Amino acid sequence: MLLDLIKKPNDIKKIEPNDYNRLASEIREFLIESISETGGHLGPNLGVVELTMALHLALDLPKDKIIWDVGHQSYTHKLLTGRKEGFGSLRKYGGMSGFPKRCESDCDCFDTGHSSTSLSAGLGFVKARDIKGDNNYVVSVIGDGALTGGMAYEALNNAARMDTNFIIILNDNNMSISENVGGMSKYLNSIRTAENYRNTKDGIYYSLLKTKHGQAIVDKVRKAKNSVKQLVIPGMLFENMGITYLGPVDGHDINGLVTVINEAKRCKTSVIVHVITKKGKGYEPAEKHPARFHGSDPFDIETGVPKKLKPKPNYTDIFSTVMIKLAKRNPEVVAITAAMPDGTGLKRFRNVYPKRFFDVGIAEQHAVTFAAGLAANGLKPIVAVYSSFLQRAYDQIVHDVCIQNLPVVFAIDRAGLVGSDGETHQGIFDLSYLSSIPNMHVMAPKNKWELSDMMKFAVAFDGPIAVRYPRGEAYDGLEEYRQPVVYGKSEVIYQEHQIALLAVGSMVKTAVEVRNKLKILGYGCSLINARFIKPIDEEMIEAAGKKHELLVTMEENVASGGFGEKTRAYMSQNSMRNKLLNITLPDDYVEHGNVDILKKEVGIDADSIVQKIVTALRS
Amino acid sequence: MLLDLIKKPNDIKKIEPNDYNRLASEIREFLIESISETGGHLGPNLGVVELTMALHLALDLPKDKIIWDVGHQSYTHKLLTGRKEGFGSLRKYGGMSGFPKRCESDCDCFDTGHSSTSLSAGLGFVKARDIKGDNNYVVSVIGDGALTGGMAYEALNNAARMDTNFIIILNDNNMSISENVGGMSKYLNSIRTAENYRNTKDGIYYSLLKTKHGQAIVDKVRKAKNSVKQLVIPGMLFENMGITYLGPVDGHDINGLVTVINEAKRCKTSVIVHVITKKGKGYEPAEKHPARFHGSDPFDIETGVPKKLKPKPNYTDIFSTVMIKLAKRNPEVVAITAAMPDGTGLKRFRNVYPKRFFDVGIAEQHAVTFAAGLAANGLKPIVAVYSSFLQRAYDQIVHDVCIQNLPVVFAIDRAGLVGSDGETHQGIFDLSYLSSIPNMHVMAPKNKWELSDMMKFAVAFDGPIAVRYPRGEAYDGLEEYRQPVVYGKSEVIYQEHQIALLAVGSMVKTAVEVRNKLKILGYGCSLINARFIKPIDEEMIEAAGKKHELLVTMEENVASGGFGEKTRAYMSQNSMRNKLLNITLPDDYVEHGNVDILKKEVGIDADSIVQKIVTALRS
Repeated sequence: MLLDLIKKPNDIKKIEPNDYNRLASEIREFLIESISETGGHLGPNLGVVELTMALHLALDLPKDKIIWDVGHQSYTHKLLTGRKEGFGSLRKYGGMSGFPKRCESDCDCFDTGHSSTSLSAGLGFVKARDIKGDNNYVVSVIGDGALTGGMAYEALNNAARMDTNFIIILNDNNMSISENVGGMSKYLNSIRTAENYRNTKDGIYYSLLKTKHGQAIVDKVRKAKNSVKQLVIPGMLFENMGITYLGPVDGHDINGLVTVINEAKRCKTSVIVHVITKKGKGYEPAEKHPARFHGSDPFDIETGVPKKLKPKPNYTDIFSTVMIKLAKRNPEVVAITAAMPDGTGLKRFRNVYPKRFFDVGIAEQHAVTFAAGLAANGLKPIVAVYSSFLQRAYDQIVHDVCIQNLPVVFAIDRAGLVGSDGETHQGIFDLSYLSSIPNMHVMAPKNKWELSDMMKFAVAFDGPIAVRYPRGEAYDGLEEYRQPVVYGKSEVIYQEHQIALLAVGSMVKTAVEVRNKLKILGYGCSLINARFIKPIDEEMIEAAGKKHELLVTMEENVASGGFGEKTRAYMSQNSMRNKLLNITLPDDYVEHGNVDILKKEVGIDADSIVQKIVTALRS
Repeated sequence: MLLDLIKKPNDIKKIEPNDYNRLASEIREFLIESISETGGHLGPNLGVVELTMALHLALDLPKDKIIWDVGHQSYTHKLLTGRKEGFGSLRKYGGMSGFPKRCESDCDCFDTGHSSTSLSAGLGFVKARDIKGDNNYVVSVIGDGALTGGMAYEALNNAARMDTNFIIILNDNNMSISENVGGMSKYLNSIRTAENYRNTKDGIYYSLLKTKHGQAIVDKVRKAKNSVKQLVIPGMLFENMGITYLGPVDGHDINGLVTVINEAKRCKTSVIVHVITKKGKGYEPAEKHPARFHGSDPFDIETGVPKKLKPKPNYTDIFSTVMIKLAKRNPEVVAITAAMPDGTGLKRFRNVYPKRFFDVGIAEQHAVTFAAGLAANGLKPIVAVYSSFLQRAYDQIVHDVCIQNLPVVFAIDRAGLVGSDGETHQGIFDLSYLSSIPNMHVMAPKNKWELSDMMKFAVAFDGPIAVRYPRGEAYDGLEEYRQPVVYGKSEVIYQEHQIALLAVGSMVKTAVEVRNKLKILGYGCSLINARFIKPIDEEMIEAAGKKHELLVTMEENVASGGFGEKTRAYMSQNSMRNKLLNITLPDDYVEHGNVDILKKEVGIDADSIVQKIVTALRS
C-alpha cells in the first residue's frame, strides 16, 4: 500500500508522480471503508482527494498554512499529515475530530466548523506573516456554497486591496454547471494561467477582445444568470475587485492542480484558483445522492444503504409535518432557511408551498432581517435554523426583529448537545443569548406533540418568539400530558412533595428517568415541564417552593444567563429559602462524541443528576 | 415659505416644478438652523435633500415603502411627512428620533440604526407585497459605505434572483470618484436608461461592443482598481448578478432623479439606481469637514465651530493615547477597526503605525475572525469597536476566537447608555453576551487611569479578553486609587460596614455619589470596584458578605446574564444570607435622550439608587 508510506507531513513528496492516481484510489478506498464504519462527511471528502494531494505536493507543511473553510472536508489532509490511525475513532468521544483542530496537529493552523470564515482567518495569517517578515504561503480552501455567506464577501473586499500573496482555492462542486459554460471556462483558463497574463495589467475582456471570437464569448458570459455562481465562473467578479483569477481547473487532475497552485504562489496579490470538483467522486452512491452522503451514518459499502434503519421520527420530522399544517391554515405563514432545506425539514414545505418558501443561502444575517421585513409587511415568517448558526444573527434578532417587536418565529433545531460535530456545532448558548433580548420569548417542548403545539402557539403569537428543540429522535413519552400551551405558563406533570424537577425541553425526558430512580430510592418527586424560558413562570416557582424542600432546574445550556440562573435570581429576590440545584452545562466547550456519553461526561445524565440531588438533600 | 405648505405626506406634489430648487434651499436652511441648535447628523442629511424630494415626488407614501439604511439621513423625509415641529426636540428624551421610527409615522415602514440592513428588509417587503398581491413600490436607500457590510451582499445575492420590482437607491457620496470614471459613467447612463435597453436581454458589454469606442471603454472599466466601489460605478457587479443598473445620476438634480426613479419603477427586476451625492452639500463647513459634521453637536452657523468647547478628554481619547504606548512597547500589537478610525480613537494609531492598522470597512464579522487569524499567527490584535456593533460578531467571538482561546483584545467603546442615538445604539447587552462565552474574560475600568491599566493588562493577557467603557467624558475622580490590575480581582476603594456597593465600570462614579448621599443619611458604605465581570471575584463577594448587611451590584447592562445575576447566583449557591440589591437596566429598550435623563428614567441615577437602598435596608 502506498498509503502506508505516509506517516508524517510531506511524506507524499516521496511518492512517484506516476503513482499519484494509485495513491488517490487508495485514499478513496480507505475513506469509504473507514466512514462506512464510523460515519462522517463522505461526499465532501471524496471530492477533494486530489486537491488535497496537490496542496500537500505544492506546499511545505506546517510552515505553509492551509485553512479549510467549514473543515469537514479535511480527512485527506488528516491522512497526509500522519493521522491515519485516528480514523478508527473519528468523531467519537476522545477520538479524532471530524474538523481541523490545532490541538491535533501543527498542520492544522486554524479550527473551523461554521461556514465562510476561512478568508478572514487566512487574511489574518497573511498580514501577520508580512508584519513578522515570514515567507510562508497561506491558502484558504472555500466551497462555492460558503461564498454566499456575507463575511466571505467582507473578506474578499479586504483581500482585494493587497500587494502580497494570498491563495484562495475555490472548491466548486456544484454539478449544475452546464457544458457551454464549462467549454468557455477551458478557453478562459488557457489564457489566464499563461505566464504572460499576469505580467499585463489588462484583464479578461481586454484579452478576449483581441481574439477572434471575443464578442461571442463576452456575450455568453453575460447570458449566464445564476448570480454569484456565474460571476465566479469567468472570474469577472474577482478580477474586477483586483484579485487575480486562475481557472477553472479540473479538481481531479493532480498534476494540473500542482501546476496551477505553483502558478498561484508566484502572484504578488490575492489569487483565486477556481477548482471544479465532484462531491462523492469515485463512489457511485455518493455521486448519485450527494445530500445523503454529505454527512452520513455508517452504511453498507455495496449498496450505500445505512446500516441502522432510522428509528423513530426526530424533531425535524415533526417540525416538517406541522409546518405543512400551519401553512395550510394560515395563508400568511412563510418559511425561511439558510441553505438547510433538508436539515431543517423544510423540503416538504418547499415542495408544497414553493412561493412561500425562501432558501437564502448560507446567510443567517440576511435571513433574519429578511424575516423582519416580511413580518413588518404583514406576513408570519418562520425562520428554521440550527442553534449554533443562529449565533450569526444575534444583532439582527436584537436590532431588526425585537426592537420593532415583530412577529417572527424562530424554529431552532439542534439546540443543546449535537454530538459528533463537536464544539463548533453544540447549540448550548441560545437560551442565554435569546433571554437577554427585550421582547423576545423562548419556549422548549418536552416531546413531539408539544413541538407541534408550541409551533401553533408561536404562529398565533404577536411578537418575536423562539421554539428550541434538540437534534435526534423525538421523545414520544408522556403522550397523555398535553395541556394547552398558555403564555408564560409551565406544565405540572407529576405533583408530589420533597423534590421538584423543573426541566427545560429535552431535559424533561431525562427528568422522567431521574424521577423513577429517585422514587426507587424512596424520594417524592414532582416533575414540572418549564415550557417557557423567557418569561419564566414565577407563579410556578412560588408554588413549587411551597411544596418542596429542593428545587432542581435542568437545561441543556450554559449556566450564564440560562433558565437556572433566572430561577435562582427569582427565588433569591423573593427570599425563597428552598434548596436549589441548577443542572446546566459547564462554562466550557463540549467536544465531539456520542450525545449520551457527552451528557455523562458533563454531568447532565440521569445518574449524575440523581447523585447530585441526593447530595444536595443531605447537605 | 414653501416649506410651510408641507404639512403631510404628498404635500410636496403641490409644489410647482419651478419651485423645487427653492424648496430644497429652504429645507437646507431649516436643517442647518435646526441642527445648529439641537445637534444631529447634518452632513448625511444635507447630502440627500434633493434625493428625498425626488423620492417623495415619484412615489406615493405611505402606500409605497422607503427603507433608509442606517437611517440618520431621514431628516428631509421627516420634514416631507409633516414632522417639522419635531425638530425642536430632535434626539431629545421624549422628542423626535434621529432615525426612522414606525411609531412616529406610517411613512416610516422599518426602523433602522445599524448599517447594511435595508436591502434584506426591503426584500422582505417585496416578497410580502407579492404574496399578498399588493402593488406598491419598495425602495431601499443604501450608502456606498454600507455596501461593505456582508449582509448587504447576502441580500444582493438574493435580490438577483427576482422577477419582480425592487428599487435600490445607491447613495454614493464618496468624493474620491475621479473625473474619467465620471465621464464614462455618463456615457453608460445614456445607454442604460434608454427604454430599449431593458427590453433586450443583452447587457452592457454587448451594447458597448457594438459601439465605436467599445473596446476602449471596457478597457477603462477594467483599470479602475478600488474593489467594491469601482465595481459599482460602471454597474458591472450588479448587471453580472442580474440586477438592472441605472446611473450614475446627479443626486442634486431633482428632475433628473424623478426621471430615473420613474424609469426604475418600470423594471420587472431588482434595479439599482446609482446616485452621486455630496455629503454636507450647501453648507461650506460641512462640505469641508464631512467627518466632523457627520454627527454634530450644536454649532455656530457662521463659523461651523461647536458651541460648547469639548470638556475633559473622553474614554476614546484615553484609549487612543494608550494604544500608541502599547504599540511602541509591543511590536506584536496591531489594531483593527470596522470603519471607525475616528470614532474609536484609532486615527492616531493609524498615523503612527500605518502598517499595523487595519480598517476593514463596515464588516464586524470579518474584523473579529481576521483578528483571530492574526492572533493564531502570533500577533496581538486589538479590535476597537462599539458595543452595539460588536453584536454583529457574536458568533465569530464564540467560534473563531474563544473556542481556540486566542489572545484577541476587544476594546469595547460606547458600552452602556449612549444617549441621543437611542435604542439601536445603546450598548446594554455586552456583559451578558460576552459572559456566556467560555474562555472569554471581561473587564470594565472605573476611571481614565484604569482604562490605561486595563489595556496594558489585556495586551499582556494570554486569551480572549474584553475591556468595556462608556461613551463620553472619562471619569477623572479616584485618582489616588490605582491598585495594580490583578486577574479576577476587584478593588476595594472604601471599606466600611452596613452597605457594600459593588460597581461595574462607569457605575463606580455613580457609586461615589451614592455613597456620599448615604453617608449624609447616616449609613456606613463600602465601595468596591468590580473590575472583572467574568470571572467574578468570588472572594470579594464572600468578604463583602461577612461585613455588610446589604450588597448592591451596579451595572449599565440588562439584568439577564449580567454582573448582578452572577453575583446573586454565587451568593445563593453559597448560602449567603445578606440582602442583595441589583441595580441594572430594565428588560426593555432605552430610547434616545440625554444620558443623565435616561439614567433617571430607568432608575440607575444616584438618587434613585439611594432610594432603592434605603427601601431595601428597611424591608
